[in-house]
Amino acid sequence: MRRVGIASSGLTKFTKNEIPLESLMVSSIKPIFDNARNLTQKDIDVVLTSTNANEKYLANIVSELSGISPKISHSVESLCNSGTNCIVSAFAYISSGLADVALVVGAERSNSPGLVFGWDKSRGQYKHPIYWSSLFTGAHMRKYGTTMDDLAHVSVKNHHNALDNPYSYFERSYSFEDVMQSKSLTDNIRLLDCSMSCSGAASILLASENIIRKFTEDPVWIKGIGQKSISAGFTKNNDLSSMESTSLASSDAYMMSHSSPSDIDVAELHDAFSICEIMALEDLKLVERGQGSTYVKNLYETNDKKINPRGGLIGTGHPLGATGIAQTIEMYQQLKGTSGKRQVDGAKTALVHNMSAAATSSTVLILQS
Amino acid sequence: MRRVGIASSGLTKFTKNEIPLESLMVSSIKPIFDNARNLTQKDIDVVLTSTNANEKYLANIVSELSGISPKISHSVESLCNSGTNCIVSAFAYISSGLADVALVVGAERSNSPGLVFGWDKSRGQYKHPIYWSSLFTGAHMRKYGTTMDDLAHVSVKNHHNALDNPYSYFERSYSFEDVMQSKSLTDNIRLLDCSMSCSGAASILLASENIIRKFTEDPVWIKGIGQKSISAGFTKNNDLSSMESTSLASSDAYMMSHSSPSDIDVAELHDAFSICEIMALEDLKLVERGQGSTYVKNLYETNDKKINPRGGLIGTGHPLGATGIAQTIEMYQQLKGTSGKRQVDGAKTALVHNMSAAATSSTVLILQS
Repeated sequence: MRRVGIASSGLTKFTKNEIPLESLMVSSIKPIFDNARNLTQKDIDVVLTSTNANEKYLANIVSELSGISPKISHSVESLCNSGTNCIVSAFAYISSGLADVALVVGAERSNSPGLVFGWDKSRGQYKHPIYWSSLFTGAHMRKYGTTMDDLAHVSVKNHHNALDNPYSYFERSYSFEDVMQSKSLTDNIRLLDCSMSCSGAASILLASENIIRKFTEDPVWIKGIGQKSISAGFTKNNDLSSMESTSLASSDAYMMSHSSPSDIDVAELHDAFSICEIMALEDLKLVERGQGSTYVKNLYETNDKKINPRGGLIGTGHPLGATGIAQTIEMYQQLKGTSGKRQVDGAKTALVHNMSAAATSSTVLILQS
Repeated sequence: MRRVGIASSGLTKFTKNEIPLESLMVSSIKPIFDNARNLTQKDIDVVLTSTNANEKYLANIVSELSGISPKISHSVESLCNSGTNCIVSAFAYISSGLADVALVVGAERSNSPGLVFGWDKSRGQYKHPIYWSSLFTGAHMRKYGTTMDDLAHVSVKNHHNALDNPYSYFERSYSFEDVMQSKSLTDNIRLLDCSMSCSGAASILLASENIIRKFTEDPVWIKGIGQKSISAGFTKNNDLSSMESTSLASSDAYMMSHSSPSDIDVAELHDAFSICEIMALEDLKLVERGQGSTYVKNLYETNDKKINPRGGLIGTGHPLGATGIAQTIEMYQQLKGTSGKRQVDGAKTALVHNMSAAATSSTVLILQS
């Protein structure tokens, strides 16, 4: 298996603007060329696009708009973890030897049809993500005594972290009181416990070990990959206080990278809702079961940016097809030491956690400099 | 690079029925288990879905409906060659070592939104495939003297071949006169020169060399892969009498498989329109430039099934997301010697040609028993 590294990245500002998907994608591709040395369109032999939008043939369209004529080009969709699925697909093309250089481009508009999980219509319930997140929250509260205060710490911390992220949708902080008093959507979910759909794009360039130093002096390597789908309907998750797909995916990622939870210096977790960050910390074995809330409270009180330094989904916004790629870009920059005010000092090993549809599937990536 | 083979396959009848996509997919997955020995749901660690429909999270949904909990699961879309893109993606997952067994499932409904190439709306023209195929036809006629009779031979031959294909949409033959007298759509395209959109599904099981003999005694190997995207708008194809992406993709596939055009015993070509089979024969170097029509006429007169034995797209129907997989299944069965009345005697090396959107991108696979 050939080693695969990250050589460049590009982002657009996350907004509520209704920008055409192709334009968003091309805007995030431009910095890919600025941020890599010697990179030309001819070097790129794979272009993959990640989105929940209904536009067809996007990988070919953005290739043409960017002057690229790739060998392999197609779209990848898996709801909210489309982005990391797309990265893993590109990894496989390079690792197998079918390709050397892959451009992965994710984008969403704020009115993406992927925001509705249509299949659940047949069950007449749980169509909207706040329902499953509310059930997760209730289960975690009953089992571990998690409180509304604990949830608020996630939201305040991540909104605060996002202030140092120039690409973030939110451009203001929220106080503990702001979150506690924000509109109740269910008996345990408030508006500021939710990530916000928005428009945005993210691009990342992967290359094989035999060519990557042509484009960058300090590549970041994708060392561990874990993915797991347990179902499409979240009621298969027997214990709603944990996310089985995340736990299983992380075990594979740690094994493949020969690392353990104690090696993780910085992580982007899929905080679609406040409870998800607390649960992910436990499912990824970064803390003991039931210790997620205490751990987050400590991060909040000490202004520690180890978890979701760019602001996570709650602070940055959640453009579905771009999210997994934007998470990976943050970890790439942290390992390069180029995260500015968001930098976690001395980060050597980073983790990305991206999931879909009530954690019915999860992707975990482990990166090392 | 680990060797990857085909271990099982499944098809549904192609029809005009409006069957839900998930049902179509599951119907084509059932025979996968019947046709492989010792295969259980637990063996499958990748499920990829290929479609142009707008349904989201399909790979997870059909996994759950089939009792499979894969590691890797997502949809792949690239218009008409989604199916072979999906196969190549699965090949990469296995070849790289990320997975051992992959189920690839393609399906379409006859009213698929992928039948409209929306992006070209901005140009105000060439939106419907008959326009590009008419321009291709005209260019080939001017350069090589191709006639309306030559086009009719493709259609009559492929409809005739499809009579022996129990999964075909068409269940009747058409005479030379039927084709010549069918409705004119442009000055050089008749109704019976066109492939017909329809509903249908196709599934194929890929496995790594180290495990495949658990499931089958006689695997068929994917030896060569070539893919190329030259653009998204077909006017980049400088010479409309040939398909550059097909030519480039075939060169890579021949090189990877250490084979040459003279080794090809049987082939499925992407005859979206009659002219495409004639051009593909030339672009794949199966015949000299300008000799495609003469070659097809000979196949027609001698009832030789070497090219498009299942009936191609014209005879079998064209359910976009399923087409590339159904083509590959036909070549798999030919190499196993299980094609019944369609069998080409002694076939050892087979070629699949699948393309999208005026041949702006092409995939070529070379299979060997």
